[in-house]
Amino acid sequence: MDSRGFREAAISSIDEIIKYYDNITSRDVVSSVSPGYLRQLLPSSAPETPESWDDIQRDIEGKIMPGITHWQHPSFHAFFPCATSYPSILGELYSSALSGACFNWICSPAVTELETIVLDWLGQLLGLPECYLSTGSTRGGGVIQGSASEAVLTAMVAARDKYLRNTLPTPPAEEEDLLKGGLGTLGNAEGEEYEELLARKRSRMVALGTTATHSSTKKAAVILGVRFYAIPVGAKDGYRLTGEVLKKALGELKKRGLEPFFLTATLGTTDTCAVDDFAAIADTLEEFTGGEEMNGDIQGDGGGKGEVWVHVDAAYAGSALVCPEFRGGITEVLGRFHSFNMNMHKWLLTNFDASCLFVRDRNWFIQALSVNQAVYGNAASAGGLVTDYREWQIPLGRRFRALKIWFVLRSYGGAGLREYIHKTVKLGEEFAEMLKGRGGLFEILTGPSFALVVFALRGKTPEEGNVRTKELCERVNKSGKMWVTGTTLDGRFAIRFMTGVRTTEKEHVEMAFKMLVEVAEDITQGA
Amino acid sequence: MDSRGFREAAISSIDEIIKYYDNITSRDVVSSVSPGYLRQLLPSSAPETPESWDDIQRDIEGKIMPGITHWQHPSFHAFFPCATSYPSILGELYSSALSGACFNWICSPAVTELETIVLDWLGQLLGLPECYLSTGSTRGGGVIQGSASEAVLTAMVAARDKYLRNTLPTPPAEEEDLLKGGLGTLGNAEGEEYEELLARKRSRMVALGTTATHSSTKKAAVILGVRFYAIPVGAKDGYRLTGEVLKKALGELKKRGLEPFFLTATLGTTDTCAVDDFAAIADTLEEFTGGEEMNGDIQGDGGGKGEVWVHVDAAYAGSALVCPEFRGGITEVLGRFHSFNMNMHKWLLTNFDASCLFVRDRNWFIQALSVNQAVYGNAASAGGLVTDYREWQIPLGRRFRALKIWFVLRSYGGAGLREYIHKTVKLGEEFAEMLKGRGGLFEILTGPSFALVVFALRGKTPEEGNVRTKELCERVNKSGKMWVTGTTLDGRFAIRFMTGVRTTEKEHVEMAFKMLVEVAEDITQGA
Repeated sequence: MDSRGFREAAISSIDEIIKYYDNITSRDVVSSVSPGYLRQLLPSSAPETPESWDDIQRDIEGKIMPGITHWQHPSFHAFFPCATSYPSILGELYSSALSGACFNWICSPAVTELETIVLDWLGQLLGLPECYLSTGSTRGGGVIQGSASEAVLTAMVAARDKYLRNTLPTPPAEEEDLLKGGLGTLGNAEGEEYEELLARKRSRMVALGTTATHSSTKKAAVILGVRFYAIPVGAKDGYRLTGEVLKKALGELKKRGLEPFFLTATLGTTDTCAVDDFAAIADTLEEFTGGEEMNGDIQGDGGGKGEVWVHVDAAYAGSALVCPEFRGGITEVLGRFHSFNMNMHKWLLTNFDASCLFVRDRNWFIQALSVNQAVYGNAASAGGLVTDYREWQIPLGRRFRALKIWFVLRSYGGAGLREYIHKTVKLGEEFAEMLKGRGGLFEILTGPSFALVVFALRGKTPEEGNVRTKELCERVNKSGKMWVTGTTLDGRFAIRFMTGVRTTEKEHVEMAFKMLVEVAEDITQGA
Repeated sequence: MDSRGFREAAISSIDEIIKYYDNITSRDVVSSVSPGYLRQLLPSSAPETPESWDDIQRDIEGKIMPGITHWQHPSFHAFFPCATSYPSILGELYSSALSGACFNWICSPAVTELETIVLDWLGQLLGLPECYLSTGSTRGGGVIQGSASEAVLTAMVAARDKYLRNTLPTPPAEEEDLLKGGLGTLGNAEGEEYEELLARKRSRMVALGTTATHSSTKKAAVILGVRFYAIPVGAKDGYRLTGEVLKKALGELKKRGLEPFFLTATLGTTDTCAVDDFAAIADTLEEFTGGEEMNGDIQGDGGGKGEVWVHVDAAYAGSALVCPEFRGGITEVLGRFHSFNMNMHKWLLTNFDASCLFVRDRNWFIQALSVNQAVYGNAASAGGLVTDYREWQIPLGRRFRALKIWFVLRSYGGAGLREYIHKTVKLGEEFAEMLKGRGGLFEILTGPSFALVVFALRGKTPEEGNVRTKELCERVNKSGKMWVTGTTLDGRFAIRFMTGVRTTEKEHVEMAFKMLVEVAEDITQGA
């Protein structure tokens, strides 16, 4: 494909994309294909000779689209949104043209520098404390990760290494490598002794979350091979972690000889958009690690304590912090925590992937994750004047993802982003009002909270309610006209209704409610 | 930005991109900005009100381009290539428009199914044994990862879990969670005992690579918190791992009481594109794990042994397998290994990121990486009829990356891909011939191998050779007219010259050689 062929193909693709967005409501929200549909439509091997663009493009509408679930459809009320916007698509377009494996600054200085700058912009827009900005006093800063899962994994690796540095005696010089999974000098007795100490310590370390924490924290613990403990939270506390419950859990773990080193605190849990009690968590942890008992052998590296690293998972609801009214009880506490993550690709109009991870001291990442190789050496990196983001993440190479964030922040401006968040939150509130208007039929279990309402269909018994709600969920989803997610809260089946998609307007929420009522009445009347 | 505004902006972006590619040689290869250049050009915070697309687009050429290092420039001879092609850019364009967090099949069946199909196509094109295809007899298959680093991490996590399952006694039912980093029932004595066993086992496990293995294997070991041992390889063996050297290393590790569970074997090392001796590695490992000594307590899960998982890192050179003449001694051995990774985004005309990871039995991934959460439940997943790729990778969500691979395979066809690989390999051979023609000035240290030649400038002493080669590297890079990477081989400074970029033609290699000779003569004549 030469330049002329590309121009023609690209313009035709742009037109197809515009047509897709302009007419998205003519499609069912969720794909209804059967497993294996595509294998029946495609050849069993790649072609030997080139195919024309016309043939390829024709297959998008004909073969791919039937298997697409439309996340930008205004009646997509499932999970969380996965935003796109036209400026963001343009960012991806330029990024793909400028493709490179930008692991070091010199591999394209603009890729690194724009990332640092736009994450500072974003941090300011979110009202994060200055310790999370690259220009702040604690050598903090932000980095774009592929997903919230990678962000929590990165944070947990850094937390484990920091905890080991702080709680083990300084290793014999040649043993330092052991902390990084190196072999050390395994012949010598001192090395063996240190290795025993390390193994024992690792086996007692436990990462914490709650039963409402996203599964990515447990997955990170699985990858690290450390214990994970989910602190039970329930309806009584609104599915949020309180200081009291945390204190009790810490006490029990300590009694069992375990050492908590990491906690995920959530701003907007997956099921209900609950917000953990950040201030009480910070107080409780300070009290916990302030004691001498578990820190008898502490060696300092600045932190000086075997403190519990708190990672804030704000993957979805973090976007709401662009509106100051959502910051109360949150942003002022963040400076007492260690890392903070939010996904612009969920609720801030930026294509997947744009998971923005902030850390209070970037050295925590670099100490844990830098692995050098001669071929990556260069004067700029050696001079220490530049950021090499490969030391802040799991992968080595990286795409130019800052570009789309830059385009989005400039195209919408702070005001535009707030307007969008306000609109979607209001839609959630309006939906909750509609439910309340039919309080005999529906029961709101949680929310409206950050454009999410969780509700159930009433029944004469809890069991009947569950059966009815499940049927309601299945029937509206089967219609193709909307998509909602079911979940289970304290044994109750519930429906999550999310109003965060960019294209969703009041009419779509009203239409969805109308269908929910119709099907619900049908079910309760035993039809 | 509405549809009309997007159309205008997108067409103007397409035209800019075409202009960029058509005139790329008018730019210096490597950016020459100073650290911090961009902060001086951009505001210190995001705008409050929207900016126009014209203003944004103007800044790309004005502010971003000076900070770009042009990986698609025909005189980019550094590192490895990072391919783009027009069909691949179109793939990214459609993918960004169809953005979704496709963690489950139902989240867009086409995203999952096309991935399975195109990776089968790719596996066939590469001549992989059928055990790596989704349709094969061992329940294997491929998955697109973001990078080779994520691929080796995923493989190592699966390898660790498989090794623990195979070498530890079956855990008490309620303890199984311990294998996945869970808390287990820590109150009971049996649980404690099992935990001690597990901690001890983990502390003896060691992941292996060589001194020529890419740093991503060590990084994965760091993340897992397991030991890593780099087996020394040198010029004598052409920087490749031989059976003999591996056998010696295994013996030494065993003597120290350590248990090797993972080995990265490389097809095309970073420094020199060496290929480890795959057949000898397979034989040596079979002999090693065939013995009874370290496997006294083995419990089977099919594998039946505490065998060493072999992951093949073919990130760059794996692309060459599309040409049958490069398969000798390689593809016929792969069926005795466990996982295989190659990056289409390096040498196969596909935008970053497209790291293709194949595994012989997908259950190894799923057993290690699946973590369930109620909200992701759905009938298709529960029915077991579909693939949920979130269980084959670190992240939860994923982009529609299969699209660009599909476009590339169809646009080029098998013949087109082979032609491209042949062309770039030939350029490397021609460059080596040019060096040989000036054998008094240059010494080839390795290659030509997979479009890479590693050479040095001669000196009267090794030290003088090092000083001269380093100066040569710095001076040609400073010119802006080409970019090469320096590295160190057995204490010798060397220059890597790579000819894999899509736009590189013979004239560019000749031009580069001319400059290398001029500067080299200048240096050797003491000017």
